[in-house]
Parts: sequence; structure tokens; C-alpha cells
Amino acid sequence: MPTLRIALAQINPVVGDFAANAALIAGFLRQAWQGGAHLAVFPELCLCGYPPEDLLLKPRFLADTRQALAQVAQATQGITAVVGYAEEDQGQVYNSAALLHDGAWLASYRKTELPNYGVFDEKRYFTPGQGGLLLDLGGVRILLSICEDLWVPGSDSQRAALANQAQVTINISASPFHAGKLELRRQIVSDFARRTGTLVCYANLLGGQDELVFDGGSLIIDPQGGLLACARRFEQDLMLCDLDLPEAGGLPQPKAPDRLLCLPAPPAPAGPSAPPACAPEMGLEEEVYRALVLGTGDYVRKNGFKKVVLGLSGGIDSSLVAAVAAQALGRDNVVGVTMPSQFTSKETRSDAEVMAANLGIRLITVPIKAILAVYLAELEEAFGPGPRGVEVENLQARIRGNTLMALSNRFGWLVLTTGNKSETAVGYCTLYGDMAGGFAVIKDVPKTLVYQLAAHVNAQAGHELIPQSVIDRPPSAELRPDQKDEDSLPPYAVLDPILTAYVEQDKALDEIAALGFEPGVVREIVRLVDLNEYKRRQAPPGVKITPKAFGRDRRLPITNHYRPGWD
Amino acid sequence: MPTLRIALAQINPVVGDFAANAALIAGFLRQAWQGGAHLAVFPELCLCGYPPEDLLLKPRFLADTRQALAQVAQATQGITAVVGYAEEDQGQVYNSAALLHDGAWLASYRKTELPNYGVFDEKRYFTPGQGGLLLDLGGVRILLSICEDLWVPGSDSQRAALANQAQVTINISASPFHAGKLELRRQIVSDFARRTGTLVCYANLLGGQDELVFDGGSLIIDPQGGLLACARRFEQDLMLCDLDLPEAGGLPQPKAPDRLLCLPAPPAPAGPSAPPACAPEMGLEEEVYRALVLGTGDYVRKNGFKKVVLGLSGGIDSSLVAAVAAQALGRDNVVGVTMPSQFTSKETRSDAEVMAANLGIRLITVPIKAILAVYLAELEEAFGPGPRGVEVENLQARIRGNTLMALSNRFGWLVLTTGNKSETAVGYCTLYGDMAGGFAVIKDVPKTLVYQLAAHVNAQAGHELIPQSVIDRPPSAELRPDQKDEDSLPPYAVLDPILTAYVEQDKALDEIAALGFEPGVVREIVRLVDLNEYKRRQAPPGVKITPKAFGRDRRLPITNHYRPGWD
Repeated sequence: MPTLRIALAQINPVVGDFAANAALIAGFLRQAWQGGAHLAVFPELCLCGYPPEDLLLKPRFLADTRQALAQVAQATQGITAVVGYAEEDQGQVYNSAALLHDGAWLASYRKTELPNYGVFDEKRYFTPGQGGLLLDLGGVRILLSICEDLWVPGSDSQRAALANQAQVTINISASPFHAGKLELRRQIVSDFARRTGTLVCYANLLGGQDELVFDGGSLIIDPQGGLLACARRFEQDLMLCDLDLPEAGGLPQPKAPDRLLCLPAPPAPAGPSAPPACAPEMGLEEEVYRALVLGTGDYVRKNGFKKVVLGLSGGIDSSLVAAVAAQALGRDNVVGVTMPSQFTSKETRSDAEVMAANLGIRLITVPIKAILAVYLAELEEAFGPGPRGVEVENLQARIRGNTLMALSNRFGWLVLTTGNKSETAVGYCTLYGDMAGGFAVIKDVPKTLVYQLAAHVNAQAGHELIPQSVIDRPPSAELRPDQKDEDSLPPYAVLDPILTAYVEQDKALDEIAALGFEPGVVREIVRLVDLNEYKRRQAPPGVKITPKAFGRDRRLPITNHYRPGWD
Repeated sequence: MPTLRIALAQINPVVGDFAANAALIAGFLRQAWQGGAHLAVFPELCLCGYPPEDLLLKPRFLADTRQALAQVAQATQGITAVVGYAEEDQGQVYNSAALLHDGAWLASYRKTELPNYGVFDEKRYFTPGQGGLLLDLGGVRILLSICEDLWVPGSDSQRAALANQAQVTINISASPFHAGKLELRRQIVSDFARRTGTLVCYANLLGGQDELVFDGGSLIIDPQGGLLACARRFEQDLMLCDLDLPEAGGLPQPKAPDRLLCLPAPPAPAGPSAPPACAPEMGLEEEVYRALVLGTGDYVRKNGFKKVVLGLSGGIDSSLVAAVAAQALGRDNVVGVTMPSQFTSKETRSDAEVMAANLGIRLITVPIKAILAVYLAELEEAFGPGPRGVEVENLQARIRGNTLMALSNRFGWLVLTTGNKSETAVGYCTLYGDMAGGFAVIKDVPKTLVYQLAAHVNAQAGHELIPQSVIDRPPSAELRPDQKDEDSLPPYAVLDPILTAYVEQDKALDEIAALGFEPGVVREIVRLVDLNEYKRRQAPPGVKITPKAFGRDRRLPITNHYRPGWD
């Protein structure tokens, strides 16, 4: 067989939508067949969407998966396909890759390495498989594997590839995005290719699912570890690629637990040739921005919303979120609300108007001063004597939250919140106030990166889409006269690296101070992060873009007296 | 050795508080020694508290555990002890039982069965151990085991007990409460005792930790499976018990991976004899009520609060929560707030006053009518023409939520929410409104059980602590004229069993209908449960009292198109 034409189908399914997902797979199968592909590869668990979480505990869900797989198998007339699905067998559930051929299901490979760290809970659901599944397609020996199987040195897949002299390794993945993840993935896949001497075809999932974004970027890596081809990112893609492989003869017969299936040599590919190609690389800001756009758009659409509403304060956070939303959903589907108080400066209010005009989105004004006044009058007696403090600041934020939710309830718009990771980490935000909403677009974006993304947005637009005055003004919550973030917090250039060390790297207080930070500052930041776990627990979901996001990635108790070095 | 005097120390540690936990253990060790015990047994992971979650990923946390264990070891002068802790060894972490004796650490047993279902994520953190650890204490052969080791038929502990002819099995546990769990535990421990022919001493943890309550109720079961002794529940306890055991001779030497440690025969126990005894049994309502009291009290205290505040509507949910809070924290530490609107009936308002008076708690009144009027005036233009609907109902609930939070911010009181499991399940509650608060006392209590608990409270009090009119009035949210829950929902006697079947038992729609419910009603309830996942995700924590609570117990995606039988 001179040439194997492979098709990596990087699709965007919806969790639990078997009918739509099966139809999506069938559509890509048709395209792959029309493009002359011999083998079409679909991502991990794409038939049910990833991660299905506790839907896997519903017996009916597993039965419905079987039915959907039968439907997909019928759509493989004239082609061979590998499709990820959840397989139930004698009371056990496996994370499996179905091998489908010309209308029939032939066999399944069951993932042997189940990740149970970070955002992953696969040992909650799946039993690990045993042994490799190999496919001989017209003389080319191909090993099937699933995601984590490639990430564990010395895995059963590595053993099976070597023991059976596989030439190609297929890996179907659902590998979530964080900044820099593609580079890491390439490294992992290259290492596996070199260790096994196989050409690796890595098909990744696409799309947003709650807090996760799957960025695609499917890969083909040669046996020397070099990058051969690379699919688009943040978009569905069908990457066709001709692989020229030496016909291997006299290969050993696999021994149990490995299995081999032989399929006849397919006819030479039809249509024009499909040489390896690489989608252009992306810088940090671009990949993060695209992740926010995809994650937000998919959350809104997949949850049945069309329009979103957000508070537009004239600050940089809400300006960035508005830009992301307009890009994800179209400007007609984004409504900004400005909710001025006595502490709102003329400048921020006018910047909110400019920002709305620049994006071409509707802007509603709802002043909160009168509402605050009545609250304070009604609470006068209960509050008693003494100066008012944070309770009045929080009331303002909560009146704004209520106002957005009232518009949401009346018009069916999803509320986007605009808090960044730095303030979420230290609790510089108000529960049921600025934290109130359905989706927290930049909750995993540190403030310093918010600035970089704003610059990126303007560079992409070729003009000041986000007004320079928004970028230049010192950040402020504007909840009391002359308030500045830096009255309460260290500068973000100091705060963010401390947060990375503590939150993402689990470093201890003295280890962080040893990086060159004032121990007193580090202590205070660590204290704030720990004390505010209760707030984050009630936050809406938002796009994960760092190696460790708040949420399923970082599971800390609220009740927690572990305070090393606090005092 | 005629008699082994064992002490089961069912203690209430705080997660992460090594100093306090080590001191607590040392105190119980002293008591056990004073009581003449040979062997004192402490619960699973009690040195760091359970579950420590991602604190286990911090290297410093594991180092601090080692230090705390050394401290506890020193406190074992003159006694032998088994203490649960997290053990780090060569980069692996184990869920271990330390065997301490006369001031020194001798060895550790590592749990072999790691639960990774329901509320448990142990495979995220721990490596399973290999082989059993046996202790020969003056001729009595004792096997160590940890929690799940007893729950898995054919576990390594079962093998090790049989292979080494153990006479006693020690099991240290952190087994969270749900209604009926004690019965289940007894069954499991009895089965193990019978299968292995060992006398089982089962020491359970005590106390509330976020959503979990550990109810104690430590057990001693004879080799025939009969109940010998049973410690108190929902209280710390040191249960001393004399075990008369035949001296065994000629026992086989354990083979790897099992190990045996021999300690000399301790002197005969000092002090009065300690015959087996059983704490009185509890009915369903009593155990649930005690769980709510312990869980709420521990959450409030362990998080550094003294007082709580809650909205007292005159309805049954808030009345029950107020009773729980007063019992947990003392009446001086509970503040009720009544927030009447134009839709509040005279009867409910007066019932709120009676309830506060009955409990002897402070009652604050903050009317919300004027606040609502200003909101509606300021939102008039944005809302546009057309009749007002749910947005006005939700605004009222949110004004109340804001009011409670304002009092919380001003005075440092923790807000208790009062929603039950039935309304949480179907989303009959307002985000940032009645859902706003720090702890949701009855979030896992179905409405029908709320009524049973109210009756129990009154029976315990010997008078109408909760006024009969509160119990008799048809439930209403009072957010529009003449509103009743049953306008929107089926009667709770129908709703609750449907919810149990769907939420707790993962039954499919037709299976629930086959239990005798109207298919259309079942369909609507299932639809509401699924659609409201986003609301529950932003709910505060609350006490788990059913086999499957919303929260870490039930992890469903928000973005979820799985809708079998909806249409």
C-alpha cells in the first residue's frame, strides 16, 4: 500500500446530544469519504461529548450510547473509522474507541490509562482496559490508543506498539486547553513517536463544555518526533493527510491481551492528493483570546441562549468581556448596562459609552443612586449607629447584580460576569454583586494578562476598539470616593506572580517569598486566597485558560484551618 | 492475656489544624490510659481531618503531617495506639494507620481499597497500599484496616485476616452520615466479621466538614456478626470496652506482603471494668435532626463565626432552620429577619414573630416594599411595555437576599439559607435571592421530611415550638397575590418520590412513571431538575443527609443536552 490517506475529524459535539452528535459524525464521515480517505479518526468520547460526568452513572445513557454507535457504524459505508464512545459491558464501563468499517462495528479498544487528577475524574466512571488493539489496513499496522495512553511513559500502549511493531499510532483525545498546552501536547506526542518508532496521528476534540475548552490543533508527528501536520485550532476541521508508509512484511502475530484485525487494502485514494500541512501558529494572547471566544460562544449557544447582558463600567475587565462577547455572538446579541452611582467618575461613564459605540452594541443606563438610598433608609435602624463601611460598598455591587438579573429574567438574556482571576483569587469581588451571572468569561485570566489581551484586541482591530483611557486608568471598583485597587491590594505585577506560585504551583509561603517577594505581602495574599474559598465556590463557571483554574481543577475545603506561616 | 481493653476514640478534628488535632488526640490518649486501655484507636485521617481534599497536593502539608505524627507518637507513653494520617513516602501518598507504642512510631498500614465514587475522590490523592499489618498484643492477633477495606468483599484485608488467623480486626473510618447509614455500616461490618471470624472494632470520625457530617456511632461486632457495643452518635466519645479473647498459640508466621509486629503482654487493666455497652438507638427524624444541628454548628464555629442570621418568613422551612440554628449555637447567636412585602399575609408575619418569641431569638424587621418600588421605577424604561412577571418575583427575593447580606457584612453574621431539597431540585428558588448565604442547612432535606422534622422538634420540645399554623398552612413563596407552591409544582407527596427516583436512583423517565406516577408530571419534573443544574452549582454548601446530595455527590454537566423522553 503506497499511501494511507487519513482524515482527522476534529468535531464539536454537545454533551448528551446523541442524535446531533451522530449526525455530525456522519457528516464528517461523508466528507472524509468524498476526500478519498481510507481511515477517519474522531476524538475521545465524541459520541456523547466530553466530559459526560455523572450522566455515565445512568444506565439509560449507556444504552442510548449503544444505539447511537450502531447509527454511526451504518454511516461508514466505504470507509474505516475510529470513534470515541462510552462502552458498557457486563456492568463495567470503558472509555473506548470503536473500530468501524464499511457499515459494521468490528471491535473496540478500551483506554488503559485513566486520568484522575486536575480536571479529570475518569476513575470515578471507567474500568481500565487490558491489551492493545491493532489494525492491519492493507499492510499498514496501526495501533489504537486514547488520550492519556500516550501521556504515561511505559504505558500499555507503548508496550503494545513496540511488541507488535506498529507503524502508526492513532490517538483519539479530549485534551482541554490552557495557555501553552499545544506545545506540551506536541512534546508528549513526539516523545511517544520516538519511543515507539511509530507515526502518530493525534485527533483532538473541539468546543467549549462548561469550564473547559477543547482547542483542536490535531497533530501528525513522524516516527522521529518531527511535526508533519497540524490542524486548525478553535475551529472544527477535517484534516486530510497522505501518509507514505513502507509496506511491512513478516510482522509478528500479536499475543493476548493484544489483538489484530486485518482489513483488505483499500483502493488508491480518489481526488487530489493531500500533502501534510500546518495551520499557522498562534501567540499567547491570540490563543487565550480565541479560547475565551469559543468557550463563551459555546456556553451561551449550547445552553439555549441567544443574547447576553453585562455591566459595562468603563473599566478594562468589562471592556474586554464585551469585546469577547461581541466576537463570539455578534454585536446584536450583546447588551451593555451602565449603572452609575455617586462614585462613578465622568471618565469611566463616558468610556462605557465609547466602548459600546465602538463595538456597536446596545447600551442601557440604570442609575443605582436612588435604589441605594432607599436600602440605606430601610436598613438605618437595623444597622444602628456608627460609620458605614463595606456593607454599603457591597450593596452597590449587589444592586447592580440584581439589575442585570432583572433584565435577564425579563428578556431571557444570559448575564456575563466580568471578574478576573486576580480578584477572584483574593476575594476582591462581591458575592451576588459583580459575581452574579451565568458565565464568568475571564475568571481564569490574571489581571496582567487582561491588559495584554486588551492590547491584542486593539492590535487585531487595527484601532482603539478598547479606548486607551480605559487601559491607562488605574483600576478601581468605584464603590467609595477615590477608591483604587492598589489601596487594598499590591500592584497586579506583584500580585499575579504570587498567585501563580500559590494557586497553580502549590508553593509554601517561604518558597514564594524566596522568589523575591515581601514576606508580609505574600502572607496577606495567601491568607486572602484561603479565606475566600467560600466565595469562589458560589461563582459561575468560566473558561479555564491556565494550568490550574479555580473549580474542578483545585478542590479545597472551605472549612480549612491549614495556615502555615500565617502568623 | 485474659482481657484486651480497647478504647475507640471518636474525635472531632478540624481539617488542616495539626496543632489542635494533635492536642485533641493527646487528650483522648491520656483519658484512654487513665481508663486502663491497652489499645486506643483513632479514626481515619483524623490527624489532618477528613477530607483534606487538595491540601494533600501541597508538599508542605505532607511534611507538616509527619511532624504532627511525631508529636502524637510522643503522647503514647504506656499505651498502644492506632491513628489515621496521610503518609508521604518517596513521592507517593498513602491513606495510612500509624501504629504507635509507648512513645514511638512502629509501623504503618496503608489502605488498599480507595473509594472513588459518590463523595469520595481518594484515587485523586492516594496510592493503594499492599499487604496487611498485624499486631500481636500479648498473644492477641490484631489486623489493622481502614474504612473501605471492609466494604469490598474479597478485599486484601479479608484475605490477610483469614491467611493470618487474625482474632481482632481494627477498622478506622471516616464514614459520612446519611439517613439509614448506621444500619448499612453495621451490616457491612457484621458481614466482614462473619467472613473472617474476627471481632471487629470500628472507630468512626465525628463532626461536620463542609457538606459532610461524620456521626460517630463506633461499633464493636463479635465474630458471629452480633452487635457487642456501640458508641454515642453526633458526639465525641471514648468508648472503653473489655474484650475477652482466647489466647491463641501456634499461629502461622505471616508471609510478605503481610507483616506482624509483636508487643509484650500489657499489664492487666487498671480501674473499674468496662463491659460492652450500647448507646440508645435513634429514629429517622432524630438522626437527621442531630446531623443538621452538628453540621450547622461545626460549619459556623470551624469557620470562625459566632452568630447567624436568617430570613424568618413564617413558613415551615425557615422555622425549622431557626430551630436547628438555635439548638446548634444557642438562641443568643441567632438573629431572625422578617422582610414583609405587599404580598406577605398577616398570618405568616405573625407566625414569624411567634416563632422568634418561642425560640427566644432576636427579630429584626426590614420592609421591602419601598425598595422594590424604586427598583421598578428605575427599571421602568429598560423593562419596556408589557405585563411584569417573574422578574418582579425574583427582585423581591433578591432584595431580601441583599438585606441579609448587608446585615452579615455589617455585623459579621453568617447567613443561613432556608431552601429544602425539593425546591432546590426543581429550581423553585431564586439565585442571589433566597439562595444567597453561607450555609444551606436543609438543602438536602426533602419537603416531606421537613414536615416530619417539624413534628419531631415539637415532640422533643413538648409543646408547639413551631406553631401548628406554620405546619398547617399550604406552602407559598408569597411573591405574588395568592401564590401557592402547588400552582407551580405537584403536591410534595408526589414530587418527593419522583425526585428520589430520578436524583438519587438515576432512574429513567419511563421507569419512574412505572412506579405509578403520571408520565407528563414525571417528564416536567425531570426537565426542571436538569435545567436547574446551573442554579444548584452556585448554591452554598449544606448538610448531606440522603444517599445522594446535590454537590460532590452528583456531578452533572450544566451544558447537557441529554433529554431522553422529554418530548
